[in-house]
Amino acid sequence: MAERSGTHLARAGFAAVLMLAVASARASEPLPSWNAGASKSAIVEFVARIARENGPDFVPPAERIAVFDNDGCLWSEQPAYFQLLFAIDRIKTLAPQHPEWREQQPFKAVLENDMKALAASGEHGLLELVMASHAGMTTEEFEKIVRDWLASARHPTTGKPYTAMVYQPMLEVLDYLRANGFKTFIVSGGGIEFMRPWTQEVYGIPPEQVIGSSIKTQFDVRDGEAVLVRLPEINFIDDKAGKPVGINQHIGRRPVMAFGNSDGDLQMLQWTTGGAGPRLGVIVHHTDAEREWAYDRSSHIGKLDKALDLAAGSGWVVVDMKTDWNRVYP
Amino acid sequence: MAERSGTHLARAGFAAVLMLAVASARASEPLPSWNAGASKSAIVEFVARIARENGPDFVPPAERIAVFDNDGCLWSEQPAYFQLLFAIDRIKTLAPQHPEWREQQPFKAVLENDMKALAASGEHGLLELVMASHAGMTTEEFEKIVRDWLASARHPTTGKPYTAMVYQPMLEVLDYLRANGFKTFIVSGGGIEFMRPWTQEVYGIPPEQVIGSSIKTQFDVRDGEAVLVRLPEINFIDDKAGKPVGINQHIGRRPVMAFGNSDGDLQMLQWTTGGAGPRLGVIVHHTDAEREWAYDRSSHIGKLDKALDLAAGSGWVVVDMKTDWNRVYP
Repeated sequence: MAERSGTHLARAGFAAVLMLAVASARASEPLPSWNAGASKSAIVEFVARIARENGPDFVPPAERIAVFDNDGCLWSEQPAYFQLLFAIDRIKTLAPQHPEWREQQPFKAVLENDMKALAASGEHGLLELVMASHAGMTTEEFEKIVRDWLASARHPTTGKPYTAMVYQPMLEVLDYLRANGFKTFIVSGGGIEFMRPWTQEVYGIPPEQVIGSSIKTQFDVRDGEAVLVRLPEINFIDDKAGKPVGINQHIGRRPVMAFGNSDGDLQMLQWTTGGAGPRLGVIVHHTDAEREWAYDRSSHIGKLDKALDLAAGSGWVVVDMKTDWNRVYP
Repeated sequence: MAERSGTHLARAGFAAVLMLAVASARASEPLPSWNAGASKSAIVEFVARIARENGPDFVPPAERIAVFDNDGCLWSEQPAYFQLLFAIDRIKTLAPQHPEWREQQPFKAVLENDMKALAASGEHGLLELVMASHAGMTTEEFEKIVRDWLASARHPTTGKPYTAMVYQPMLEVLDYLRANGFKTFIVSGGGIEFMRPWTQEVYGIPPEQVIGSSIKTQFDVRDGEAVLVRLPEINFIDDKAGKPVGINQHIGRRPVMAFGNSDGDLQMLQWTTGGAGPRLGVIVHHTDAEREWAYDRSSHIGKLDKALDLAAGSGWVVVDMKTDWNRVYP
């Protein structure tokens, strides 16, 4: 009896040790929100390969540059780019100072929540919204406007703060790459100054590692104070063929890894993976209508068509959000 | 006698210990190529002030951004900007493929070493030289051209490699600031892609921390290879009021320290030191005709006039190269 008890205890002890060992292996296992599978393996094996000192594919830490699209790659982008929802809220806030907007498109559409009329105003209409909401103030004033909006705005369907709609698996990739000596950059079609106020806190990416579209700014001395004023004029569109141009302008070298999710990232993926030496391109494919959204070839936001066709032949990893991620938001 | 000998030995030993102590104090003393004086004290005291945790002027490391002009601030710029001397050499190298240049200004002037005719071609002529020498190749091809040139080119009066004409006292400032948690950036009117191939090696500044003037680039797939091609078209002039614009575009925050040497740095100094909290502006004044060059208000290169007038009232440190530096080149 005593012996059986002892055996039991020994067995229980052995099981406990085993469980501890498994738990500890899990804790140290990278990318816990990624299910085991081809996507996760491709990322982890690539990083191990380029980090192996004296290995044939070793990349010195200084050259370990990884670039990430933002909308649809690091955070959600449905039912509309979050920056557009910001512009709409901003127009509503400013409306009392602009009585003429009540009769003037695309502002009328915004004030009446008429999304059909807004869509009908086309690219020109959107540009007018952006200029009216993003220009005319100093860079520091705009930063405060963005911060204040993010602190109180909520997503129309999930009710979450926008910064809570970032992808936990991608946060883990960012951390994992930085732990392996990478410098992580955002390369987004979105506004550079719309992202910078919160990327450090949310992604661990400082403002100087954010690349995006921009409007022109102008140096001015106002009441003896040196400021930069935001002008209603496009400076740079960091999308499609503009992405490699923006990367080269800001970073001055070809990245080693690029993460995107749409045809807007195609040239960034081509330029990144077209360099000599080991390179990896990754596409986040939105396949999860239940936990997030499912869309690709026919979507007007984050359209993924040509890049999806080219992925297999180019050796790019296509992440299946539904099966590769065991968790979407933090 | 034995006693005196012993005393002698003790004295010699004491002196040796004293000398060692002095040497060690000197070794740990920052900025050894700077003579004791107001300029050195201003820099060292400022850094101590912003690095003092719990002090009233503490700046968190993430916000410790220091920006440096290049020409005339980190390396020499006489008798002409080194990049112009590069363009001239490049035109001569390319001349056999351009027989028409023998009769066409400003190329004719370059090929005949006619500096007067070259100067007469004005800004437009210089632009033509820059485009002919800096555009038409991929970004990677241009990088190699710059590297190859620097490896063999020698300065016309000193006979030194250009990268040996960097200022030792400024190299020490760069190191000193980085040791105190600063991120150091170049903000130059010179070409961004002309500097990036060598700034890491020479200044310890990686390509992604170089801001400069640029020509446009275009993404292209050539023979199945993704490249960026350099176009003969100005993209951005990072000079005067363009400097704060370039800083904001690349870094996204106001620097804490700015180092310049000419009126081209005036707005950068104003914008940097105009921010809230502790800020420091520093001007390198070329006063040493013997070891380097002496010039300021009437120079056509690195003209320092208005910024010199505003320095005292703005609290900017004016470094007197002749008296403040005990060494110029490494």
